Amino acid sequence: MTKIYRLDPNRVEENNPLDILAEIIEPEINLVNQIILKETENRVSLIPKLASHIISSGGKRLRPMLTIASAKLCQYSGNRHIRLAACVEFIHTATLLHDDVVDSSNLRRGVKSANTVWGNESSILVGDYLFSRAFQLMVSDGSIKVLKVLSDTSAIIAQGEVHQLLTKNDLDTSEDTYLDVVEAKTAALFSAACKVGGIVADRKITDQNSLESYGKNLGIAFQLIDDALDYSATSSKLGKSRGDDFKEGKITIPVILAYRRGDSEERSFWQKTLVSCKQNQNDFDHAVMLMNKHNSIRDTIKRAKHYGDKAKDALAIFPNDRIKEILINLVDYCIKRDK
Amino acid sequence: MTKIYRLDPNRVEENNPLDILAEIIEPEINLVNQIILKETENRVSLIPKLASHIISSGGKRLRPMLTIASAKLCQYSGNRHIRLAACVEFIHTATLLHDDVVDSSNLRRGVKSANTVWGNESSILVGDYLFSRAFQLMVSDGSIKVLKVLSDTSAIIAQGEVHQLLTKNDLDTSEDTYLDVVEAKTAALFSAACKVGGIVADRKITDQNSLESYGKNLGIAFQLIDDALDYSATSSKLGKSRGDDFKEGKITIPVILAYRRGDSEERSFWQKTLVSCKQNQNDFDHAVMLMNKHNSIRDTIKRAKHYGDKAKDALAIFPNDRIKEILINLVDYCIKRDK
Repeated sequence: MTKIYRLDPNRVEENNPLDILAEIIEPEINLVNQIILKETENRVSLIPKLASHIISSGGKRLRPMLTIASAKLCQYSGNRHIRLAACVEFIHTATLLHDDVVDSSNLRRGVKSANTVWGNESSILVGDYLFSRAFQLMVSDGSIKVLKVLSDTSAIIAQGEVHQLLTKNDLDTSEDTYLDVVEAKTAALFSAACKVGGIVADRKITDQNSLESYGKNLGIAFQLIDDALDYSATSSKLGKSRGDDFKEGKITIPVILAYRRGDSEERSFWQKTLVSCKQNQNDFDHAVMLMNKHNSIRDTIKRAKHYGDKAKDALAIFPNDRIKEILINLVDYCIKRDK
Repeated sequence: MTKIYRLDPNRVEENNPLDILAEIIEPEINLVNQIILKETENRVSLIPKLASHIISSGGKRLRPMLTIASAKLCQYSGNRHIRLAACVEFIHTATLLHDDVVDSSNLRRGVKSANTVWGNESSILVGDYLFSRAFQLMVSDGSIKVLKVLSDTSAIIAQGEVHQLLTKNDLDTSEDTYLDVVEAKTAALFSAACKVGGIVADRKITDQNSLESYGKNLGIAFQLIDDALDYSATSSKLGKSRGDDFKEGKITIPVILAYRRGDSEERSFWQKTLVSCKQNQNDFDHAVMLMNKHNSIRDTIKRAKHYGDKAKDALAIFPNDRIKEILINLVDYCIKRDK
């Protein structure tokens, strides 16, 4: 059996809550990985090949870990969360496959993206397959409540992706509109991943909503940091090409802030590079310079912290325990990450 | 409200079972259309625009009609079949959107395909959205049985699409392998559309299986005729470009028969055009000539009739009534169609 994920003791950073969590829930995550491998087995060999390429390529497994951790926070003692965590990861992976086609991305997590290796057609269709598999897993769980949360979430994600496509190359996109996109395309799945943990534990609605709110705000913070990293990280750490958002004309918060705070000459620069898509070799560095001038990266991180604070407060109603502590530390970790 | 479908009295061909069925189940189909319109409403305006382009572009509405007709054949008197018929059409539409991207098709039902008008990215993402919407509709129906049938079907369709991609440009594809593809990519949804009618009517498993078998065999016959039409129809009737399969190097039954029955010179021609993808202006006409020489089209239709006969026999256990008669006539209609 191909190994998808194993905690590498040499990799554990001190005080890295993701590693600490991975250590605590290792048995559950191993079971999740087993399900993922089993469910992608197929006599059409391209399916397991392509699926394992993207699933095994060193993703953080953040979303299924959130499902497991949320269920644990709710003292859940069954095993339904395992299958549903796999299902959340399948939805995420299907989205990534389609994202890379839509964005014409060549790199994902430091390796060639699936569409680069097998072509766009394969990525589209295997994405559809994984998405269907996600639904099969939910159906085999049998809870209409969970099915409702995850099918609603899938529709919201797709709507967010379409919405993002419309904001591309559109410098009139407001910060609020962009936040709508972020809530839909990223935060909705974080939110659902956490809520599902509360549903399987049969927790009262207030608790489920708190988990939902934690996931949503963590998801927004996570995406804002992602957007900041596209202008500030080093490519080797990022695992994808730095400046990809810029090249594709994506209008993210760092751009929105720099554009709105800039003078008319600077705005012309943003128009030329992101709307007319005329980019020279030094334009990306100039963009970063303008962002630094207007503190766009700093303030994007500040915005992320705002949502991070909301995420932490959402967990206040849960009694203090080790998992809650880790989930709270995870917020700061997601904000401080450099990849 | 945009009109999606209305039976045009001038369009009714005498003895056309599809028109006769459309007339009988017009109230139900109107309700299906209302659901389709309502469910594609979205503040992200590209979604309803693109969705209505493909949904309103004069498709036969064959699959949702099969759900309604199957439920009627089972004397079902509720209204669950309406929503599920819409759900079946959503799955079909999502598949078409992705198909057109994968096949780089420019025409669909005689008009520009959605990817030609709005780009591949939009078609991929709105396809994902419609697919998610289909699941939301199933979930709102609330039956795990139906959810199982339709989520299994979605996975089978996606698997069939990937499988088809692998048979592209591969003249070693056997007739049986190609039939596997057809069963998955086309017949599975016909089959599920019919079975769902039996499930909502709470019919015994034998009846459900008979409907499943009717749909499956009708679906295979339907696809084989589609494949024959790509080499024999006139473009204006076909609503897509004649010869598209040839241009794309798709290995369908007419090709498989002509290739296997041909001499070494003819096989070199098929290798050059479909494997090496070197096609000259007259190659398509030459391909059609070779097919006529070896009776490939005639025998593809013969194969289709074989499955058509199985479809008709599958309905034998149902008492003779008007709907059964129409469903049986529909088989011959699908085989004799010229578009």
